[in-house]
Amino acid sequence: MDQLQALRNIVGASQVLTGADAQPYAVDWRERYRGQARAVVRPGSTEEVAAIVHLCAKASIPIVPQGGNTGLCGGATPDDSRRAVILSLQRMNRIRGTDTDNDTMEVEAGCILQSVQQAARDAGRLFPLSLAAEGSCTIGGNLATNAGGTQVLRYGNMRELTLGLEVATAQGEIWYGLRALRKDNSGYDLRDLFIGSEGTLGVITAATLKLYPLPPARCTALLALDSIENVIVMLGRSRAGFGAALTGFELMSGYCLQQVARCFPQQHLPFDGASAKLPWYVLLELSDSESEAHARTRFESVVGAAIEAGCVKDAVIAESLAQSQALWHLRESIPLAEKESGKSIKHDISVPVSRLVEFVEGTNTALQNAFPGIRNVIFGHLGDGNLHYNVACGAGWTKNALLSHQDEVSTLVHDCVHAVGGSISAEHGIGQLKRDVLPRYKSAVEMALMRKIKQALDPQGIMNPGKVLKADEH
Amino acid sequence: MDQLQALRNIVGASQVLTGADAQPYAVDWRERYRGQARAVVRPGSTEEVAAIVHLCAKASIPIVPQGGNTGLCGGATPDDSRRAVILSLQRMNRIRGTDTDNDTMEVEAGCILQSVQQAARDAGRLFPLSLAAEGSCTIGGNLATNAGGTQVLRYGNMRELTLGLEVATAQGEIWYGLRALRKDNSGYDLRDLFIGSEGTLGVITAATLKLYPLPPARCTALLALDSIENVIVMLGRSRAGFGAALTGFELMSGYCLQQVARCFPQQHLPFDGASAKLPWYVLLELSDSESEAHARTRFESVVGAAIEAGCVKDAVIAESLAQSQALWHLRESIPLAEKESGKSIKHDISVPVSRLVEFVEGTNTALQNAFPGIRNVIFGHLGDGNLHYNVACGAGWTKNALLSHQDEVSTLVHDCVHAVGGSISAEHGIGQLKRDVLPRYKSAVEMALMRKIKQALDPQGIMNPGKVLKADEH
Repeated sequence: MDQLQALRNIVGASQVLTGADAQPYAVDWRERYRGQARAVVRPGSTEEVAAIVHLCAKASIPIVPQGGNTGLCGGATPDDSRRAVILSLQRMNRIRGTDTDNDTMEVEAGCILQSVQQAARDAGRLFPLSLAAEGSCTIGGNLATNAGGTQVLRYGNMRELTLGLEVATAQGEIWYGLRALRKDNSGYDLRDLFIGSEGTLGVITAATLKLYPLPPARCTALLALDSIENVIVMLGRSRAGFGAALTGFELMSGYCLQQVARCFPQQHLPFDGASAKLPWYVLLELSDSESEAHARTRFESVVGAAIEAGCVKDAVIAESLAQSQALWHLRESIPLAEKESGKSIKHDISVPVSRLVEFVEGTNTALQNAFPGIRNVIFGHLGDGNLHYNVACGAGWTKNALLSHQDEVSTLVHDCVHAVGGSISAEHGIGQLKRDVLPRYKSAVEMALMRKIKQALDPQGIMNPGKVLKADEH
Repeated sequence: MDQLQALRNIVGASQVLTGADAQPYAVDWRERYRGQARAVVRPGSTEEVAAIVHLCAKASIPIVPQGGNTGLCGGATPDDSRRAVILSLQRMNRIRGTDTDNDTMEVEAGCILQSVQQAARDAGRLFPLSLAAEGSCTIGGNLATNAGGTQVLRYGNMRELTLGLEVATAQGEIWYGLRALRKDNSGYDLRDLFIGSEGTLGVITAATLKLYPLPPARCTALLALDSIENVIVMLGRSRAGFGAALTGFELMSGYCLQQVARCFPQQHLPFDGASAKLPWYVLLELSDSESEAHARTRFESVVGAAIEAGCVKDAVIAESLAQSQALWHLRESIPLAEKESGKSIKHDISVPVSRLVEFVEGTNTALQNAFPGIRNVIFGHLGDGNLHYNVACGAGWTKNALLSHQDEVSTLVHDCVHAVGGSISAEHGIGQLKRDVLPRYKSAVEMALMRKIKQALDPQGIMNPGKVLKADEH
């Protein structure tokens, strides 16, 4: 029996796609990576996933797990050898159960993040993970890359939001690890090993997620600041003044907001005069467990003191939900404005907050020295030390000139990140994109530990080969 | 050169203890486990730790890492073969640095937990891990067992409080993984694999810990309730009403408080009449980011509504810090009263909060059926589903009769825990104590995954052999 027929026997003929039907799955959504797959297989249950992996293990067929295909590092795209099977989890999209007494929810890997958020809200709870692709990314992909987003400051990454996992191992066995416990110290932490491993150690088929109380009120403010030093001071004041109520602290450079205003004239910056021309803006979000009015009072107290101290130059506190949304919309429009403004070189980096000034100033200077006229596009989740430190064409630059220096620019930025103890991938993962530069920034000891684990759990090297680690490295 | 001399050459002669000097290290503090060690070695630096491990790896000498020796499962005690070297981290007790802008602190493994808490307070920050042994346990032990305690509800276990690690691998290499980043998705999560592995995969020598703002106010209340069902309802009300300000939700059975009152007459339960005779009491703690007065107002609102709804029968809200401390002292005195009252069989278990009623009622009944007259001693961190579900002599029982049934009692309790999806070790780890029962409650797939990881990282089996996994299992 040929292997395609064997796969059809597991999932049904209609769930094995080949040829033109398979091709859309073999290209990442930004069309940076174009692979070829032997077939796309779409299982409907954990048992089917395990049977597929078991079959592939016996036949040494590489498996590329895929969720919503919204990754930014090519982690879900096969190579072009046409050897791999793409294992699409999209049909496994059941919310298996919501437990409001325990504040947990059991979901399958193919659930769209937005559906999970909505199901939590329907149960009167919050599932806090929130990111740009939430309308199409899946929980499985969020787990594979330990997704971050805008609420990490308060609630943590996907890892901190997950209590248990169900996994098909690289041998096609099923680990039923769907615990719903906040304390469980009974052996090695397999859960967190699979989370963030980008499908290279096994296939996550379901997870038990943490839920939180829905905050009765949210309130947003936009601050205008004259230096990055003051941004850091304001982060300290916000943490001290708001405690756990601080759920967002997003940094935007003045240039980013000017681009948004230029590309989307219907959006406007709620500042005039000098305040509209400052170099930095911060979007602050407070989730209050009492009321809107209480949130505003706290904002007025903490932000007011910061203005008096000269740390913040100007501030707008949203008067209504609509105004809060308008302020968030400014932040969310930055990547779109960036796209409209032409090609940029993107970096998803994190640094210790205490070294952020040194990093931004040092890297800006080093870039100008090496590539005079180049332009910084800086925004991100500053509360977590996570910046999207992007680089775009400035005066005298063309798209082609910029692209011809892409590797040099990224190496310069990543070297600066590394020099201050930062990470070259804060929330997007490694995938194919950063696989070959990873050993430049991780010690030989760490790389060797990773390879030992890969070898131990996937000795045949069939699980998403060539992602995170080189295919021949295990 | 003999191996003891080689060890002396690494750490200096005075830091290698043998014979009677070594013996105190080879016995756990409760004197449940008595081992014998070839020597105790007390390195003063990470490089010395690595050199010791390297030497032991070459000579196949087992290593038992040890911190404050306060563990409850025999995880830091060698067997009696006199083959192992005890690697005491106590001299590595430097706080290497505190970064208030980044809210992190770098500490060595031998730091006493209380010193770390104090250093954080001195810097105007909170390090939230808090547990009974905090005056003598070390950060290294807290990491090895992923320690829990009373603040997990809000701040998480040791794992959630740790950003980076420095580890000597089982080959005696050093992994410098002391990252101070809240977002870092660049490869496998080695950090969380070493945390909770009880010294069986390598030796943790230092860690980067998360700090939090010091809450301006803390306020405590003691509630009296008439059923375990209402305890669960009150937990839901507290989560919804207090959000992230809820930092403690400790359950105590009426029997526990009566024992405290009996053993320590100077302590008194702040209830009279019927309220003093209810079956359950809950200690609630609120950490408020505004003021004491604000905390009290919130307590009055949420607890008042619960009394009106009949969910809570009586409540005392502490009027002062002294009264808050007195209420906490009641909770902290339970283990002492338990000890005063005679032998008990202890269980450190967790269950999903939604199945807690079923667990408590079912297990109480099953115990009475199997061992009529036996007495339950139930208290714990209910907000995390973590109970210390202990069993003591009741009417007609003697200490010896109880002890003769120890294994049967524990098996009954653990089987009940397992039946509701719980864990047989919530916060104490596995060590030697629960090693042999672990395979009863974990699937063959999970045990095999653990053994593969052990084999990959410690192929010689020299790291704390016989803890978590059987020594011959890897």
